[in-house]
Amino acid sequence: MIKEIHIGCASTNTHYGKRLDTTLVKLNSKANFSALFTSNKFKSAPVQICLNQIKKKMKGEKILAINAGNANAATGRKGVSDTKKLIKEISNLSNIPTDQILPFSTGVVGQVLDMKSLSKGFNESFKNLNKNSWNDFATAIMTTDTKSKIVKVSGKIGSKKYHIVGVAKGVGMIEPNMATTLSYIFTDLKISESFLKKLHKEICDKTFNAVSIDGDQSPSDSSILVATGLSEVDAKKNLKKIKKDIYSVFQKLSEKLVLDGEGSTKLLKITVKGLSSESNCKKIAMKIANSPLVKTAAFGEDPNWGRIIVAAGNAEIDEFNMEKLSLKVGKFPVLVNGNLSKKYKESQGQKEFRKRKINLELSMGKSKHSFTVIGSDLTKDYISINSDYRS
Amino acid sequence: MIKEIHIGCASTNTHYGKRLDTTLVKLNSKANFSALFTSNKFKSAPVQICLNQIKKKMKGEKILAINAGNANAATGRKGVSDTKKLIKEISNLSNIPTDQILPFSTGVVGQVLDMKSLSKGFNESFKNLNKNSWNDFATAIMTTDTKSKIVKVSGKIGSKKYHIVGVAKGVGMIEPNMATTLSYIFTDLKISESFLKKLHKEICDKTFNAVSIDGDQSPSDSSILVATGLSEVDAKKNLKKIKKDIYSVFQKLSEKLVLDGEGSTKLLKITVKGLSSESNCKKIAMKIANSPLVKTAAFGEDPNWGRIIVAAGNAEIDEFNMEKLSLKVGKFPVLVNGNLSKKYKESQGQKEFRKRKINLELSMGKSKHSFTVIGSDLTKDYISINSDYRS
Repeated sequence: MIKEIHIGCASTNTHYGKRLDTTLVKLNSKANFSALFTSNKFKSAPVQICLNQIKKKMKGEKILAINAGNANAATGRKGVSDTKKLIKEISNLSNIPTDQILPFSTGVVGQVLDMKSLSKGFNESFKNLNKNSWNDFATAIMTTDTKSKIVKVSGKIGSKKYHIVGVAKGVGMIEPNMATTLSYIFTDLKISESFLKKLHKEICDKTFNAVSIDGDQSPSDSSILVATGLSEVDAKKNLKKIKKDIYSVFQKLSEKLVLDGEGSTKLLKITVKGLSSESNCKKIAMKIANSPLVKTAAFGEDPNWGRIIVAAGNAEIDEFNMEKLSLKVGKFPVLVNGNLSKKYKESQGQKEFRKRKINLELSMGKSKHSFTVIGSDLTKDYISINSDYRS
Repeated sequence: MIKEIHIGCASTNTHYGKRLDTTLVKLNSKANFSALFTSNKFKSAPVQICLNQIKKKMKGEKILAINAGNANAATGRKGVSDTKKLIKEISNLSNIPTDQILPFSTGVVGQVLDMKSLSKGFNESFKNLNKNSWNDFATAIMTTDTKSKIVKVSGKIGSKKYHIVGVAKGVGMIEPNMATTLSYIFTDLKISESFLKKLHKEICDKTFNAVSIDGDQSPSDSSILVATGLSEVDAKKNLKKIKKDIYSVFQKLSEKLVLDGEGSTKLLKITVKGLSSESNCKKIAMKIANSPLVKTAAFGEDPNWGRIIVAAGNAEIDEFNMEKLSLKVGKFPVLVNGNLSKKYKESQGQKEFRKRKINLELSMGKSKHSFTVIGSDLTKDYISINSDYRS
């Protein structure tokens, strides 16, 4: 679909039986590249190494090297030297310099890598370069995900076609047991590196950074956006259309992450508007999305809207004013400027809460700022998945 | 036990069948008084009224009027006028001015008060003044609590005895469905009002404000500390001993709240030390106590310590430095300055996680600051309690 992106996968036959769990992705020398990483102060060894690599200008062919099953986090100096050894091996195989190889790991925290099986896995992945599909790639990065996540969008400007394809994995935002969030989005659009980085940050902030499964970021969260330029469609000249297409790939991947959140049965879409800044709107929306009581109410299909405004009040936003707060559950007004709506009936809230996607809207003032967050519910399956002893 | 504190309770026969659910507590005119309220920006009608009353100097006899079952929160102007009506009625019964009567409500959010049954309840409570016990008081403020919570401590200075008695209710920190945190602590010690307020704040910050069930505060959280002075033991002259005794009442009530947290099976005691301020230590300890993944690991008795440091890294504390982080699970070192301890065995962590009280200690630098938080685990029962439809 996108030329000059070569995918090779293999299985280490460890955590996931025969399932693919190691991936190499080779990028052509002209591909422009943007990388964003977790804001967690505690970063995995691969994230530490990536952050160092991308400080320098990366020229020439590149390799992304990904393993699922072990995050190589909280492994101290040994963790960093292990990943560096694997990079050296991949460099020897590929003749690509070590500082053009970016490592990504996802899985258990606090265990050292099984170097023997990973060496073997990457060796095989290298042999398979070009043989594997986007679907294989989406599968090989999974941990506790129940489904692989892949979104493809194609477009046309005049007679020239362009493509965007993205793969991602979840499933908890913090999920050091057996998950973390990784996403890789590729396009053949022509986008300069500086503009690519700007676009990536802007879109990520409204999509992956506006998602909450359990309220946190892992030590491994990484997002990569690559533009090969081979379609010869210039993004800047067709900005509105192209931005919308790239945004839609990120947005759809985000929704897939939420709907496959650990134990998730619902998607909550929470819009907060009217405060003095977008960032204040986001803080309140995130507080609601992360409230265990809002999430359990969603699971129970109980339109217990009191919990929504209690969570909002807890966001420590000084301009919070109950007398300016209006709340809609679905399209139904519940509170109007802090007073109970006389028209609201419990059955209306129930109707919305029985849907798979629940919409909540808080209007908190008169400004034009707004922010939308999507999150999952909190279920007994979440507890089962996360309280089962690691095996 | 403490003279001149008169307790009267009754049942409205609504939410809890025949169980006591309304309480009046009459304080003598000499009793000094301190009140602390929720930091949630969204405050229940009773909390709004209390905050107004305590702005003025409160002189003479006082009444605390408490109902369980309905929080009277998110009820707008009607909520405030309803509570004011009840205060007026109690004032008529007791001849105590309305501005000396403090209201407290706990229970469902977003429903208007059932005025008829509450009028009747407070009327009966007034008739019962002096007839009810501390145990009745502790019972009448319960919502989803499975046990009443009462702590009594007595002491002696020379030949003079003094007493401290506290009652509290939980059960979730935010629990607008059927709970909120209320606490009432009484002593016959002599403590000036200004010193009482200072002491109350200081002790609350290390006890009730260092507890987390699900990470938030309700719109109703209130704590009251009353000193009647009738023992003639002066607190300031015997400060060390007396502070320890008052602290122990708050601390034991806090532990009872956690152990009766909704669905709770474990108490996690998390100490963070060595950062540049106590407040940074507290932020990290709270982030760990509120992490769904740490809480589910505790429930599953899985010493998955990676989750602890991932949560710590998410507290947005700039001085977080993995290379200075040491972690002990119980008495066992797991990480030493960011590197895996060679002596640590999984079986050691398991041993600690099988206990009812799990101790975690993070050392993050060399300062003498430290902060300890207690929290509960996150269980399937929590989900059941909070996803069941309100009935």
